[in-house]
Amino acid sequence: MTDTAAPATTVVFLLFPGITQLDFTAPAQALSRMPGARLVGAAANRDPIATDSGFAILPTHDFASAPQADILCVPGGHGVTEALGNAETIDFIARQAAGAQWVTSVCTGAFLLGRAGLLRGKRATTHWAYTHLLPLVGAAPVKARIVEDGHLVTSGGVTSGLDFALTLIARLQGEAVAQAIQLAIEYDPAPPFAGGHPDRTPGTITEGLKARVYDAAAARMEAALKA
Amino acid sequence: MTDTAAPATTVVFLLFPGITQLDFTAPAQALSRMPGARLVGAAANRDPIATDSGFAILPTHDFASAPQADILCVPGGHGVTEALGNAETIDFIARQAAGAQWVTSVCTGAFLLGRAGLLRGKRATTHWAYTHLLPLVGAAPVKARIVEDGHLVTSGGVTSGLDFALTLIARLQGEAVAQAIQLAIEYDPAPPFAGGHPDRTPGTITEGLKARVYDAAAARMEAALKA
Repeated sequence: MTDTAAPATTVVFLLFPGITQLDFTAPAQALSRMPGARLVGAAANRDPIATDSGFAILPTHDFASAPQADILCVPGGHGVTEALGNAETIDFIARQAAGAQWVTSVCTGAFLLGRAGLLRGKRATTHWAYTHLLPLVGAAPVKARIVEDGHLVTSGGVTSGLDFALTLIARLQGEAVAQAIQLAIEYDPAPPFAGGHPDRTPGTITEGLKARVYDAAAARMEAALKA
Repeated sequence: MTDTAAPATTVVFLLFPGITQLDFTAPAQALSRMPGARLVGAAANRDPIATDSGFAILPTHDFASAPQADILCVPGGHGVTEALGNAETIDFIARQAAGAQWVTSVCTGAFLLGRAGLLRGKRATTHWAYTHLLPLVGAAPVKARIVEDGHLVTSGGVTSGLDFALTLIARLQGEAVAQAIQLAIEYDPAPPFAGGHPDRTPGTITEGLKARVYDAAAARMEAALKA
């Protein structure tokens, strides 16, 4: 896409049981088309990883064999609360982050970065239902879909991973490369409803969803973060 | 989400080697949160399916054991050209479609529906780089992100699957359910660039991408459709 050869870029995604499949797939789809990118999915072992959508994905590497990331990406999902208590997972994140050029998260993956000590004193974001918990890992919550603080990039809930990945691609290889990938995946969104964020969704929808799902989920996350 | 129990809805995704991971994951993520939904990923056999993003997904069923779909969803990807020549795959699509309430596609999955005879005389869409080939399967191309023709719903490239799924969920279970799912996955898109469709992308970007990727890919698709 450019006159010079694209630099080799190793992108390591953390995989864990209960991962939100779209948290991981949206940035993977965009980044897989970045010239020179090599994508890795690393988990504690090579067993299939059950996602939250009823499917299973195979890791490409276990933690021991995964190459050093240039871009470390930690997705979220309801499995985060369990992963927070897994020392091997947190050690892997800390070790990879120490050598990575970019340390990133999608959705509640931010709390795994936080548990690894990577958000202390940093500005960050996460899924809207969990932003109030960011101070528990030392982060200052910012109300934004993508938050950059140096080479730390956190993004909001689930679908924000696409906006984050295209933004990062533009930073790394220029806007023309990112625009071409946006066009290749026809990312010209037309959501059927205004909304997708509590600020733009009817209050009854937000309150109902919190009561059914997120009040309890955030309480579980809070308990896991305080454990 | 409603006062009455949600109806059981079986959603069958066709899986095949070279599938675009986001074509399948975006609607799966939304539909997996629809009350009563059961998601199935069906392939010729239970071997891992290599996606176009460097990962592999495990089918939940082979063609013989897959349950009858209420919603059949056929994703696209560069693997479509090969799948067009696979009689077992096309037979599966035709058989499932005959009993399904909704027959749907994302991206170039439309051509698999077409090969199964399901687009004859129908209005349809697909990825922008392939719309001119729809008449080869008897369809009338419509320039839209989502096209409904009776119980046939085709959608545009890759990321359109999210808009399609939320639209279908609203149809099946009401707008409040769809809005809650849109909020749960924080689908409040903020693409870094205007664009994502040739009508809204600088011509040099579109022409460059066609020259590098899609002129050849569309020619391969045309050859496969004429074979």
